[in-house]
Amino acid sequence: MQQQQIRHLLEQVASGNLAPEKALDQLRDLPFENLGFAHVDHHRALRTGFPEVIFGQGKTCEQVLSIAERIAERGSPVLATRLEASTAQALVERFDQAQHDPLARTVLVSTADIPAAAEGLVAVVSAGTSDLPVAREAVVTARAMGARVEEIYDVGVAGLHRLLAYREKLHQARSIVVVAGMEGALASVVGGLVEIPVVAVPTSIGYGASFQGLAALLAMLNSCASGVVVVNIDNGFGAGYAAALINRRTSDES
Amino acid sequence: MQQQQIRHLLEQVASGNLAPEKALDQLRDLPFENLGFAHVDHHRALRTGFPEVIFGQGKTCEQVLSIAERIAERGSPVLATRLEASTAQALVERFDQAQHDPLARTVLVSTADIPAAAEGLVAVVSAGTSDLPVAREAVVTARAMGARVEEIYDVGVAGLHRLLAYREKLHQARSIVVVAGMEGALASVVGGLVEIPVVAVPTSIGYGASFQGLAALLAMLNSCASGVVVVNIDNGFGAGYAAALINRRTSDES
Amino acid sequence: MQQQQIRHLLEQVASGNLAPEKALDQLRDLPFENLGFAHVDHHRALRTGFPEVIFGQGKTCEQVLSIAERIAERGSPVLATRLEASTAQALVERFDQAQHDPLARTVLVSTADIPAAAEGLVAVVSAGTSDLPVAREAVVTARAMGARVEEIYDVGVAGLHRLLAYREKLHQARSIVVVAGMEGALASVVGGLVEIPVVAVPTSIGYGASFQGLAALLAMLNSCASGVVVVNIDNGFGAGYAAALINRRTSDES
Amino acid sequence: MQQQQIRHLLEQVASGNLAPEKALDQLRDLPFENLGFAHVDHHRALRTGFPEVIFGQGKTCEQVLSIAERIAERGSPVLATRLEASTAQALVERFDQAQHDPLARTVLVSTADIPAAAEGLVAVVSAGTSDLPVAREAVVTARAMGARVEEIYDVGVAGLHRLLAYREKLHQARSIVVVAGMEGALASVVGGLVEIPVVAVPTSIGYGASFQGLAALLAMLNSCASGVVVVNIDNGFGAGYAAALINRRTSDES
Amino acid sequence: MQQQQIRHLLEQVASGNLAPEKALDQLRDLPFENLGFAHVDHHRALRTGFPEVIFGQGKTCEQVLSIAERIAERGSPVLATRLEASTAQALVERFDQAQHDPLARTVLVSTADIPAAAEGLVAVVSAGTSDLPVAREAVVTARAMGARVEEIYDVGVAGLHRLLAYREKLHQARSIVVVAGMEGALASVVGGLVEIPVVAVPTSIGYGASFQGLAALLAMLNSCASGVVVVNIDNGFGAGYAAALINRRTSDES
Amino acid sequence: MQQQQIRHLLEQVASGNLAPEKALDQLRDLPFENLGFAHVDHHRALRTGFPEVIFGQGKTCEQVLSIAERIAERGSPVLATRLEASTAQALVERFDQAQHDPLARTVLVSTADIPAAAEGLVAVVSAGTSDLPVAREAVVTARAMGARVEEIYDVGVAGLHRLLAYREKLHQARSIVVVAGMEGALASVVGGLVEIPVVAVPTSIGYGASFQGLAALLAMLNSCASGVVVVNIDNGFGAGYAAALINRRTSDES
Amino acid sequence: MQQQQIRHLLEQVASGNLAPEKALDQLRDLPFENLGFAHVDHHRALRTGFPEVIFGQGKTCEQVLSIAERIAERGSPVLATRLEASTAQALVERFDQAQHDPLARTVLVSTADIPAAAEGLVAVVSAGTSDLPVAREAVVTARAMGARVEEIYDVGVAGLHRLLAYREKLHQARSIVVVAGMEGALASVVGGLVEIPVVAVPTSIGYGASFQGLAALLAMLNSCASGVVVVNIDNGFGAGYAAALINRRTSDES
Amino acid sequence: MQQQQIRHLLEQVASGNLAPEKALDQLRDLPFENLGFAHVDHHRALRTGFPEVIFGQGKTCEQVLSIAERIAERGSPVLATRLEASTAQALVERFDQAQHDPLARTVLVSTADIPAAAEGLVAVVSAGTSDLPVAREAVVTARAMGARVEEIYDVGVAGLHRLLAYREKLHQARSIVVVAGMEGALASVVGGLVEIPVVAVPTSIGYGASFQGLAALLAMLNSCASGVVVVNIDNGFGAGYAAALINRRTSDES
Repeated sequence: MQQQQIRHLLEQVASGNLAPEKALDQLRDLPFENLGFAHVDHHRALRTGFPEVIFGQGKTCEQVLSIAERIAERGSPVLATRLEASTAQALVERFDQAQHDPLARTVLVSTADIPAAAEGLVAVVSAGTSDLPVAREAVVTARAMGARVEEIYDVGVAGLHRLLAYREKLHQARSIVVVAGMEGALASVVGGLVEIPVVAVPTSIGYGASFQGLAALLAMLNSCASGVVVVNIDNGFGAGYAAALINRRTSDES
Repeated sequence: MQQQQIRHLLEQVASGNLAPEKALDQLRDLPFENLGFAHVDHHRALRTGFPEVIFGQGKTCEQVLSIAERIAERGSPVLATRLEASTAQALVERFDQAQHDPLARTVLVSTADIPAAAEGLVAVVSAGTSDLPVAREAVVTARAMGARVEEIYDVGVAGLHRLLAYREKLHQARSIVVVAGMEGALASVVGGLVEIPVVAVPTSIGYGASFQGLAALLAMLNSCASGVVVVNIDNGFGAGYAAALINRRTSDES
Repeated sequence: MQQQQIRHLLEQVASGNLAPEKALDQLRDLPFENLGFAHVDHHRALRTGFPEVIFGQGKTCEQVLSIAERIAERGSPVLATRLEASTAQALVERFDQAQHDPLARTVLVSTADIPAAAEGLVAVVSAGTSDLPVAREAVVTARAMGARVEEIYDVGVAGLHRLLAYREKLHQARSIVVVAGMEGALASVVGGLVEIPVVAVPTSIGYGASFQGLAALLAMLNSCASGVVVVNIDNGFGAGYAAALINRRTSDES
Repeated sequence: MQQQQIRHLLEQVASGNLAPEKALDQLRDLPFENLGFAHVDHHRALRTGFPEVIFGQGKTCEQVLSIAERIAERGSPVLATRLEASTAQALVERFDQAQHDPLARTVLVSTADIPAAAEGLVAVVSAGTSDLPVAREAVVTARAMGARVEEIYDVGVAGLHRLLAYREKLHQARSIVVVAGMEGALASVVGGLVEIPVVAVPTSIGYGASFQGLAALLAMLNSCASGVVVVNIDNGFGAGYAAALINRRTSDES
Repeated sequence: MQQQQIRHLLEQVASGNLAPEKALDQLRDLPFENLGFAHVDHHRALRTGFPEVIFGQGKTCEQVLSIAERIAERGSPVLATRLEASTAQALVERFDQAQHDPLARTVLVSTADIPAAAEGLVAVVSAGTSDLPVAREAVVTARAMGARVEEIYDVGVAGLHRLLAYREKLHQARSIVVVAGMEGALASVVGGLVEIPVVAVPTSIGYGASFQGLAALLAMLNSCASGVVVVNIDNGFGAGYAAALINRRTSDES
Repeated sequence: MQQQQIRHLLEQVASGNLAPEKALDQLRDLPFENLGFAHVDHHRALRTGFPEVIFGQGKTCEQVLSIAERIAERGSPVLATRLEASTAQALVERFDQAQHDPLARTVLVSTADIPAAAEGLVAVVSAGTSDLPVAREAVVTARAMGARVEEIYDVGVAGLHRLLAYREKLHQARSIVVVAGMEGALASVVGGLVEIPVVAVPTSIGYGASFQGLAALLAMLNSCASGVVVVNIDNGFGAGYAAALINRRTSDES
Repeated sequence: MQQQQIRHLLEQVASGNLAPEKALDQLRDLPFENLGFAHVDHHRALRTGFPEVIFGQGKTCEQVLSIAERIAERGSPVLATRLEASTAQALVERFDQAQHDPLARTVLVSTADIPAAAEGLVAVVSAGTSDLPVAREAVVTARAMGARVEEIYDVGVAGLHRLLAYREKLHQARSIVVVAGMEGALASVVGGLVEIPVVAVPTSIGYGASFQGLAALLAMLNSCASGVVVVNIDNGFGAGYAAALINRRTSDES
Repeated sequence: MQQQQIRHLLEQVASGNLAPEKALDQLRDLPFENLGFAHVDHHRALRTGFPEVIFGQGKTCEQVLSIAERIAERGSPVLATRLEASTAQALVERFDQAQHDPLARTVLVSTADIPAAAEGLVAVVSAGTSDLPVAREAVVTARAMGARVEEIYDVGVAGLHRLLAYREKLHQARSIVVVAGMEGALASVVGGLVEIPVVAVPTSIGYGASFQGLAALLAMLNSCASGVVVVNIDNGFGAGYAAALINRRTSDES
């Protein structure tokens, strides 16, 4: 698309409809908007159909609202993550269609519903009950990207039979998100059961020598199972996003 | 036991009492219960006679209560660790037989008392007064598993004569839990005095270059005394559990 | 498939053709082979059509040869990685179809050629010339899995125009492997340019505070671009494998 | 200057105007002032014309006020950083000319205004909105040192076109401060675009494996772009100071 | 025993057969032997019946031989670990009964054979073929301590069915040694299958973010399975020793 | 002294005044007192004349009071460190002679005043104003041990002339405590100026890559100046204690 | 310059001398050269007049020679760093004007001599004799960039008078490179003496807790002296490059 | 002394015997000698009577010889540490009085013998046989500084009775060097037995989670025994030097 914009620009120059100096200006005029404290990147939202994502941590309520409004004005869906409760509340009050998930700490503003029979399945698996906030962030994100999602929680390796009961369900997915803290062994065990890309998310659940998720992170990076890739500690959003990208399969149909 | 269940299943199939398809279903139907946010593993409780353990950290009061009720319904004893004070209080109010140890932050729900003259002795030794919460978690756990426990506190290596006074007592144990923070030297000294398995628990007691228990953890892993094994920082539960397993000695009587 | 084996077994028991005790034995008899020092997992090779992979590091030449022979006997392709030069040589001498890539330190033994017009494209991009061994391992692996691969080397962010020249090529891929040492910034920059899954491989190229690839690893895990997932330092194999899995897109066609 | 003081002293001794013993005393009497809890270094302020800087963290309000008063008494400008809100308020109440920047957490007390057309430009660039407090600390510091400053915020590498739009502006600077958290890739990308000293400031923005800014710090230290130098995590002051020193260019005019 | 020696001493003093000063000397005269560079601790060998263990690393061939001779002179069995090949050879030449295990890098000098039907079983399980040297060190050590040992190798979690096939064998053991590098997940999976003490040994097998065994070490310390205890990286000796102590069960028979 | 106790015991046995069994009991009866949660070590206080030290962190107010009372009952002086404000208050209310230093967070209970002209000088030097709490803990401790102490604060290396002004004072000390955070360079500079033992205390003052004192700790351990020894981060007590031990010089007068 | 190229291109399109499609192609055709294993960036050399730099580590002799030849063909000077002795020898044999510095492990190929009276002075200061290889790499680099360089070696802080003797020399420099291992305190001391930008290079000289230069790196990042910036461990090249950039002062003359 | 030199200088100026300009020159002319690659600090040797110490690591044989000759020319004793065998040999050949200790890797060149009945005792205690090289470096250093030294080796805490046998010997020392690797517990145990300054030296003896001495270093820094101070890993020289300084007790005799 950007390719086409440039070609169009050059053709206008060739036809004398645009002065070279003005073309030069426009080449620099890419689609982002400067709010002073933020450069909103409309380009991405237009190109992908994916919602624009606002990382809420370290931003004031006013900043989040202001960015969300600019995106919504262009008709793009908005996903905001890692929100303070009060900021989430402000978004809910400001946008009628806002869906707030308190556990995941997300708000999604989207007019278009994800069709129930969306193509492709993403499975989100967690080792323990305490991993749920991170797992839910992945679920909300993948659904916002258009994926069907299956949730399987509390099936850690200490009671292996619980996981094995879901083996068939796992085989139906196009990508699997595995969320686990402590020793993070679940990623390897799932990776050994399937021939499907596994996006592993270490969580900071644990204490002592878990070092806030470092133990799980290292374990997942060293997985003896092939096909396991890793995102940052507690990064449910990143895992859901990558899993949805894999699930979408659009890149070479274009 | 699981072995026998499968044999029984196959015999029923052989006798025509069970259709193959239904047997297939049952093979997948292992004894756990799905609460949505948790898969309670009844299998373990049934198999071992040990209480089911609920790790309280990162769980809501409602989640802990709900899991505890499901376990208790089956007649199993319940041990909950790392409890918020309010969750502990809720358990005490819900279960008549609940025993709350505020220092250890545990609640044990058990109809069956541990006999005073239980077989086997576990010694729990701490280096300092500040290590007591972790030591107590080990004590409560080991007792819940049926062990007699001897407590010996504040006998760190800076005043070696205090420890040496308990040498005979140590020799009577089947396993010894050593709880120490700071430089964790007590594990090596105890390990050098006895020919008994020593389960060492580093604690996060200390400051600066103790790095929240890392110094003690590394020291214990590098113990020059043979027979010293290590669990996670502040993991009194894990140490008490392992010490009780060693003490129990049932595995090859079966 | 395993599902079907068990169903068949149960039907044989139901029909009286198999005694329950013998069925029990067979349930334990899953398709692996015990060489004493190794359990070769034929199950995986049969199921996926992917070559069986031998991780050469820490194995003797005899062990690698012996495992390779067992796999080849079953008609499966063999991929061996991280090979000593002498072991690679021994494989080349033993198998006529062996293809040795000295830079990647791999040997592939496969009767079936990867078709030149294989479906799907994997792009492998490296930041520097020194990253080539790792990048090549990813290339060999992805090709062995059936992917077409495009190689783009030495396009690190210090000279951004080199990378931007390949932007169109990148958009054609179904998945992109980014290989970079030092500060690993290439993964974020590529991730910001495309809406395609990016598998980032940190390499140990660098010195001092690169800490053998740790700097690049942490940078990639903290990528501000969405859709970037990470594998272990220098793990070209893992990245090529995951990229090929994403590229293949077979899981829900079944 | 100190050189000249000593020469003058020795000449006075040579002329008999000063007894050797008294000269010895004066040699020890360098220009600092002992407040008991602090030795205020007037020497530096006199020598450089730069404001004296008070690092507010870990100092009581009384200590900060007391040090500021001693400096102001000598007619030197005062810059205080990392201030508690209440301490900043106290400075504002005590000094009429105090300028308080709440985002940067600084107070500048200076009678002399920085001329709008000051010589030399320092560009301060940030990757994200959350990096603003650190970026602003650099801006305030560089301006207090007499530099013109251009602020360019939220131009992280995930949307590269935002940064490229400011390329010309960057080329006009004598030094550039790059402020970035997470993977810190912006420093390398800017360093690759210009042939100007880049002072990189890692910030603690991020979570999980950012390890409070360690990821960005390591990335910046390993930058593949030449001309990138690094200061401590969140050290906006240090970056602004160094950038202003480079901008000033006075050292060999003396 | 030491208790009795002191009692005997005091009785001799009481009976006038020993002067107080001489008793004082003897109290200091505990059973060790000073070789100048080493204090051989005969006390331990006498008390436990276990062989005296020489840690070969960092000792010259002459030192190892000299210590071994002193121990053998007293009729104690000798176990030497982490031996250079040449030192192992020297021991084999010096002692007729020496048994050298090149993989484990051990030499055992013992006149008494371990009875084939020794009481108690220790299972030694490894995740990969590359973990064998460490696993074998555990095997040799546990056998030298009088345990029967079952070896189960290359049953890592990437192919879970390989491990599950040995489930019954595992249940027969009194203690289990689990040896695993990379992500070390095998310890948790084994720990979840059995109610038997599991001694986990992380190995330095792996590369990159395995950090020479750190990843496996942290994973094992954070095991979500109860009953898992940990020894130092590559410490096959320590694991075999602890497992044999647990297996022996002699402490409270005394 | 212990030596003499044992000799006396043996002589009583020899003279028939003490039965061997009773002597055996007394040998075990060393001077400590069991409070249940603590073993107070009276032995040390008696032997050295130094006050008994209570490490307040992690102890309840009741525990501190109870230990303090037992020590005071024997007439020993008491030093308590790292006290909560409320615990300090409780000690002040309980003991008339209690001296509370709020900055150092210590209470000293001592009837005997330290003589103003005590033998030997300990210099306590700090780099910055923020290091004062740690420096003061060293001062209080060294004075409690009987040393004269000279305090020199805020003489960090950024303004070297401040330190050089105190050079003569430093040469008069028997030992020097250097307290510094951030880069901890002051220890090396002081160590280079004098030929006197320097006890370096890294403090947690700093931010970012100071990693809570790790930077200063490593710097001090790697000091290029000879004669510099190091204690734990923020361990003012330990430094004051060691400096006072060096100052005291009693060990070989016996 | 790139700006002008694009303007020229657009003007040609406007005048009908260039078809839009061809202009599009040329926009992609930026000045780099693809050698297969490397993309040589001629753009940078042309723009800055600085020599093109080849980082020798991890490149084969053939690769270094090949890249050097392409650069030299365009008439640019060549600087190669971190060379194996044999590669350096090959460059010397290939290029007549090659200057080899064995200590710095560099080769400079340049027809133009640096004028003896070049404008601006860079001081390179080292703490110890062992730091010389890194210091020399900075010297060679800065000289290749056109700076006069003053070398001051072995003036570490353990003997402060050695450094103070060079104080005047330091004040004459436009930028100072400080090279130090162990505790790296020299950077802070120099930074406290001057008001000139100090580029600090930690070296890996030291042992034990220097952790291959980490101690010096952290110390320099935490320098209490303002105006100190830091490059990677052992990165003499980077420090010399940055110091020469600061020294050159050309950026805003354009 | 330096004090007196300056006073003398000023008196000469006052008496007209020295021109102020020349005095200024001499003030800068402190007693060091510039060898180009090293500034030999004669000042220290003159002031303290201690031998000049050459740290051999990272220096060429020629550099070590050259520095040694300059020191010897002034009549000072020379101590060289961490020597390559060939450099040690060269020193032995060059200086008749050279004493080479191969285990400690030191050469001492001294005309004056240390008197056998030197005042003051330093005890050097090691935990294991493998710690001897470090322990011997401490012994050689302390003896070179004039201390009597008692060596007690291989008395680690795994066999505590070995250490207790030397308790009286320890009480006779003025300072004690404790050398230990692995978990380093010996420092705490010795520190708990005596009221004498203990200089603890962690060694890199160990493997796995000893992390080249880090475990022992952290343990010693966190010692629960008061009076324990620490030097760098394997720094036998530094420990011997500090122990000899404490032993010497000269500072306040001046």
